Amino acid sequence: MAPGPRSRAGDPAELARRVLAGDRRAVARAISLVENRDPRAPELMALVFPHTGRAAHIGLTGPPGAGKSSLISALCRHLRALGLTVGVLSVDPTSPFTQGALLGDRIRLSEHYLDPGVYIRSMGTRGHLGGVAEATLLAGVIVDASGRDVLLYETVGVGQSEVEVAALADTVALVLMPGSGDSIQALKAGVMEIPDVIVVNKADHSAIERTRAELAQVLSLADPERRPVVIETVATAPSGIDELWAAVEAHQRALAEAGDLAERRKAQLRSELLALASARTARRLGTMLDKSPDLAGLVDALAERRIDPLTAVQRLLEHA
Amino acid sequence: MAPGPRSRAGDPAELARRVLAGDRRAVARAISLVENRDPRAPELMALVFPHTGRAAHIGLTGPPGAGKSSLISALCRHLRALGLTVGVLSVDPTSPFTQGALLGDRIRLSEHYLDPGVYIRSMGTRGHLGGVAEATLLAGVIVDASGRDVLLYETVGVGQSEVEVAALADTVALVLMPGSGDSIQALKAGVMEIPDVIVVNKADHSAIERTRAELAQVLSLADPERRPVVIETVATAPSGIDELWAAVEAHQRALAEAGDLAERRKAQLRSELLALASARTARRLGTMLDKSPDLAGLVDALAERRIDPLTAVQRLLEHA
Repeated sequence: MAPGPRSRAGDPAELARRVLAGDRRAVARAISLVENRDPRAPELMALVFPHTGRAAHIGLTGPPGAGKSSLISALCRHLRALGLTVGVLSVDPTSPFTQGALLGDRIRLSEHYLDPGVYIRSMGTRGHLGGVAEATLLAGVIVDASGRDVLLYETVGVGQSEVEVAALADTVALVLMPGSGDSIQALKAGVMEIPDVIVVNKADHSAIERTRAELAQVLSLADPERRPVVIETVATAPSGIDELWAAVEAHQRALAEAGDLAERRKAQLRSELLALASARTARRLGTMLDKSPDLAGLVDALAERRIDPLTAVQRLLEHA
Repeated sequence: MAPGPRSRAGDPAELARRVLAGDRRAVARAISLVENRDPRAPELMALVFPHTGRAAHIGLTGPPGAGKSSLISALCRHLRALGLTVGVLSVDPTSPFTQGALLGDRIRLSEHYLDPGVYIRSMGTRGHLGGVAEATLLAGVIVDASGRDVLLYETVGVGQSEVEVAALADTVALVLMPGSGDSIQALKAGVMEIPDVIVVNKADHSAIERTRAELAQVLSLADPERRPVVIETVATAPSGIDELWAAVEAHQRALAEAGDLAERRKAQLRSELLALASARTARRLGTMLDKSPDLAGLVDALAERRIDPLTAVQRLLEHA
């Protein structure tokens, strides 16, 4: 019996074919499959992965409020004007207060939703244990396979999330704003790794002078070989976007010329492999701890000091 | 043959006895054993763990530069004046620039090094995959078992590290300073969880008014039930330290009265158990990937697109 349109849409081979043809709806569907850990995801990944590695992977990270979404919107416009296609993977933090900020982000990006040359996807941060990192990583593979020229990863955070985005991106841009005192302190203290490019957005703000001075002071301490360029932008104007893209391209060229790109990507693949495997194991351990009758009472025993943490770990791992 | 003093010092039972007696040198040695994953660590943990659970576990987190070390030094003085003994576990970030900040921290805490009522330990951030979190957690057990009344965990970070410290502490204090714009944005966006207490240190700085206003605005959005008190301090004066400690005690009392402390600690023990087990598994996976002849070439195969990530993960996990 010939499969109907419904079952064909669920067929990994057909879905992979459409992803590789650049079909945005297929890309969306494929990402949902990997996000939901659908049993068809492995076959899909096996089919699309050989067609990846061509896109430029750019990470944008920084504190909330720095205007990353507006900057990405302006970058999309710039890249489209250059004739390049774009994929945006945006990691949304879940807010205990309000989804207002996210709604605002969607509005800022809305002009691109009708452009087939731009694919935008928000990755939810539901779930723990590296769930987002895992889904984002696999979503990046799918968007890359769909033939986008440039893939922008947006993550929010100060100090740590850039580590995650660095594992995905060839070039990491840290987006600050005047008043980003904590981020500059984090760079200074070495808590935050020096990114490839620093963007100070909202550069028309009166506090820009102070931020300039603080950044110059921090960067004067950095290894001159690895000292990032600082680009000032006003995403909403827009201004400085062409300089930003030129800086990203210069970094990509420098990587390629130094022969570092292949090494960097290989190191990233190793980290990604370990991250995926660890996330999967952590998830399995959590499920086991909650479900296995042999482990029922293990946390109670810990709480009552009848078993110590290292022995408890051993018992848990013996069941893994 | 009777064991000599050297072998007795290395004997877990003897070491545990001395830890439980509050011997600071034994505590230091015991922490080194767990940090180095010494084969004697499990026996030691099994012996000391039943004697834990009495100390108050307080976390202090916040951006670098906010003056956490000065604040901890002032807190130590305050707690000692109240007749309480203190343990401080400080997680040091590794700086690519200079160890200057850390050296400064040590100087700020130096007045307490000769006081037997204060035990201070810096936990290095060498190693990845939860190595510090793991060592800090086990060090906390040892310091708790040594009979300290109050255990202060210090972590540096903006936005994420407070999650780790929340897994260890009954009460989490976020330490900000005037100019901590990014941290306040992170609270507002929900990227950073609302702590139990907010401290604005360096409150004699001229920018305090603006920080006050920003915080008030952010906290007006928070659930009134969970709205933290804001304490202003000048650690170097010192001023506000008694108010800070009163706020911490009030939070601890509220937890105890609501009957939440036991639940919170049980949930923490569950997270700790999973964190330890996951860290151990991640480490084993990394070693396997590098050492196992069966897995040699797996990363190369990924880089050359001969195998896809999910299949590679499966192969790695089959060897675990």
